[in-house]
Amino acid sequence: MYNHAPKDYQCPLCLIAKGGGNGITNQHDIVYKDNLITAFVSAKWWGKNHAQIIIVPNKHFENIYDLPSNYSHAIQDAVKEISIALKKVYKCDGVSMLQHNEPAGSQEVFHYHFQVYPRYTDDGFYDNLKNPRWVDQTERLPYAEKLRKYFERK
Amino acid sequence: MYNHAPKDYQCPLCLIAKGGGNGITNQHDIVYKDNLITAFVSAKWWGKNHAQIIIVPNKHFENIYDLPSNYSHAIQDAVKEISIALKKVYKCDGVSMLQHNEPAGSQEVFHYHFQVYPRYTDDGFYDNLKNPRWVDQTERLPYAEKLRKYFERK
Repeated sequence: MYNHAPKDYQCPLCLIAKGGGNGITNQHDIVYKDNLITAFVSAKWWGKNHAQIIIVPNKHFENIYDLPSNYSHAIQDAVKEISIALKKVYKCDGVSMLQHNEPAGSQEVFHYHFQVYPRYTDDGFYDNLKNPRWVDQTERLPYAEKLRKYFERK
Repeated sequence: MYNHAPKDYQCPLCLIAKGGGNGITNQHDIVYKDNLITAFVSAKWWGKNHAQIIIVPNKHFENIYDLPSNYSHAIQDAVKEISIALKKVYKCDGVSMLQHNEPAGSQEVFHYHFQVYPRYTDDGFYDNLKNPRWVDQTERLPYAEKLRKYFERK
């Protein structure tokens, strides 16, 4: 419903969920996966809020209007676990969530994704949302490895 | 877990969920309610994104770390229905979600709340997030009434 992906869309998040890479994100970024959802460290960071986590359904749905409840429930279960993990592993002072739908709603990748940001006191979160930077694998890896270890120990 | 509300906190969102008012929001703002959650038109608007919807659990939980899954699942079911409602009733071009936890994470009211914003092409959403304005009942009421009618017809 209200879909905007072109007909021949090569979905970059399906590639991740199916076990591959998309040229930016790859399997080393994944921190948690089950039969319904995949969670990974974002390759695009904002200001001081390094290494936010993106959670996606393993099956392709473009947006919230289309997302079935078994997937949205699984995503929210992961949101809670990841929020607690960010508190423990990143030692952040809070967490914020963003989720966008349709181009007018700031959606850039046409596969539903839910973003969990670590927050820090006076981090200027809103000021920085417009100025992301792409981060290479070497910067992302320590965050992904620590979170993977956290979930393996659970 | 990671709670910040003072011990004698008079929770303004519990007052709404229990059928009353808190001096800002009241029962006329409610657009949908069931045994687990309440959804109402926010009294604080940002830029062009008028009348976003706030969804709360009827029972008091301060944040995502504490929220039980039956409530988070019910909230997400409502998020989907409200997103589709905003498309149909507000004729918006997209929807965005925000959810904040802890003061460092921009949380101002210490009862978990999930916000669904109508989005419009070139609405400057991120620019306006820092500059909200309080809106009185007469401005809120037409939005609440239209959404209530939409859910009553469903």
